[in-house]
Amino acid sequence: MSGYPEQVRVREVGPRDGFQNEPERIATADKIRLIDGLARTGLAHMEVASFVRPDVIPQLDDAVAVLDGIDVPDGVALSVLVPNERGLQTALEHKDRFHDVAIFLSASETHNKKNVNRSIEQSLEALERMVPVIKGEGLRCSAVIATSFGCPYEGPVDPGKVFEIGGRLEAAGIDELGFGDTTGMANPRQVREFFGRAFELSGLELTAHFHNTRGQGLANVLAALETGVRSFESSFGELGGCPVPPGSTGNIATEDLISMLHEMGIGTGVDLDALIEVSRAVQEVLGRRLTSHVIVAGPVGWGAVRP
Amino acid sequence: MSGYPEQVRVREVGPRDGFQNEPERIATADKIRLIDGLARTGLAHMEVASFVRPDVIPQLDDAVAVLDGIDVPDGVALSVLVPNERGLQTALEHKDRFHDVAIFLSASETHNKKNVNRSIEQSLEALERMVPVIKGEGLRCSAVIATSFGCPYEGPVDPGKVFEIGGRLEAAGIDELGFGDTTGMANPRQVREFFGRAFELSGLELTAHFHNTRGQGLANVLAALETGVRSFESSFGELGGCPVPPGSTGNIATEDLISMLHEMGIGTGVDLDALIEVSRAVQEVLGRRLTSHVIVAGPVGWGAVRP
Repeated sequence: MSGYPEQVRVREVGPRDGFQNEPERIATADKIRLIDGLARTGLAHMEVASFVRPDVIPQLDDAVAVLDGIDVPDGVALSVLVPNERGLQTALEHKDRFHDVAIFLSASETHNKKNVNRSIEQSLEALERMVPVIKGEGLRCSAVIATSFGCPYEGPVDPGKVFEIGGRLEAAGIDELGFGDTTGMANPRQVREFFGRAFELSGLELTAHFHNTRGQGLANVLAALETGVRSFESSFGELGGCPVPPGSTGNIATEDLISMLHEMGIGTGVDLDALIEVSRAVQEVLGRRLTSHVIVAGPVGWGAVRP
Repeated sequence: MSGYPEQVRVREVGPRDGFQNEPERIATADKIRLIDGLARTGLAHMEVASFVRPDVIPQLDDAVAVLDGIDVPDGVALSVLVPNERGLQTALEHKDRFHDVAIFLSASETHNKKNVNRSIEQSLEALERMVPVIKGEGLRCSAVIATSFGCPYEGPVDPGKVFEIGGRLEAAGIDELGFGDTTGMANPRQVREFFGRAFELSGLELTAHFHNTRGQGLANVLAALETGVRSFESSFGELGGCPVPPGSTGNIATEDLISMLHEMGIGTGVDLDALIEVSRAVQEVLGRRLTSHVIVAGPVGWGAVRP
């Protein structure tokens, strides 16, 4: 086991992964207000928009308006998600508005087919064409492999398959490789073994993207931390997540993650009180009680190492 | 780090810790039905009643009727909680109905005063008189030290103070020593350091009793597991918990705990599907959606090691 780090990187994905999964489209003005709020909590990395087909995901059809409307401090790195070459072309028309392009595919054929209507090989070939374009524009490129720890349709996913996909993307020139536990199927023993192997195979920054579907999200974070992972994705309010299984909770909550890290003496640069305020604000916008814990219980309030 | 064990012990405390914290008293017949259901899931240890003053905790005023009414399989060890010598005397009138007497106090003066209206020293002296009585009746005696990882009124709690209390109880003859994170203030780094020291000091079976107040419950279980803890307490449906902070979630959910352990290949003897059914039954009795995760998402459904 490696020791606990002094600092880790947290990328807030709620404005994309969270807002996308809301049944009702959130008003553009609310999105802008919430993103501007998040960007003032010390969160230095945020995924804020997606260039997907508006008829497929109407919840994110205002990507350009959001990017034009937000006003984030210098030093906050913004990502946008693109599903394919067409989305990338649209995104690049606004390339002065963000720093990083996030690309993705699934490690399970069935999930990839349902998600982007392609085989894994078709997705990979497109991504291999896209990465040099992204890098050629002077942008950073991060990739996420969904269903890395299991697929709700196919069951177990072979880590060897995940690492083979990761190797192709790494060879194509990505800067960061993330592994998504898209429907919360990972367990800590698996996470430990998975990242142990991943660090042997890859020289990239490796990111863990866990969901709290079965309540194990932060236990998986702990296992990943102990294996050397220093980069995590999470969603304020515990927004987001796959609609499988129905009714289940989403991504790990950023405020729960930050709370645990700070209490363990691990810095994130985030002002937890300010973050809780923004999570309470999105709760008001959505008009329902969110499943994040710290939004209710508050920080421990003592002993916490403030960054 | 020690390796993961093949098997751990889980004590279900929902029928006491959970039912006690419900605003409305649950009907005796419902309690009996739920306990009988839990006892048929493979859970071999359960805390099912408390001999407290009925005017103080009316939710548990039917302890005798519950003990008389339940019908649990041989091999299921039952605990009852007693707060003081008077409660112990009443409990002992029904000593053929249970196997273990659970005693408790807090490691924080303020919490102990608010909880049992005594100083820690007054509590300890009474418990030191009670343990030989319990053992003399041929019963097992387990003790839990509440607020072992922090107190909502006093803040940090000195582990040295906790271990001093534990040492007095061990000398008095208890069989098992539990540490309660009564308001969910523990973090995994603290848990690791705490149990590392505890195992150096004590020869007893050490039990971890975590709450999920800040979403870190299962991360704390993982840290405890890695430090050698093999005994956990949890509550079906994520019932229970301290009313501080208001609205926060309770004990770790037994089904979330069992799900994680089984997925990690750690046996518990529990049939997770059967347990989820009982948790859904208590949800119906209470008429509100509980905060357990697996009650909604179900088990991962593949790769899980079934006991």
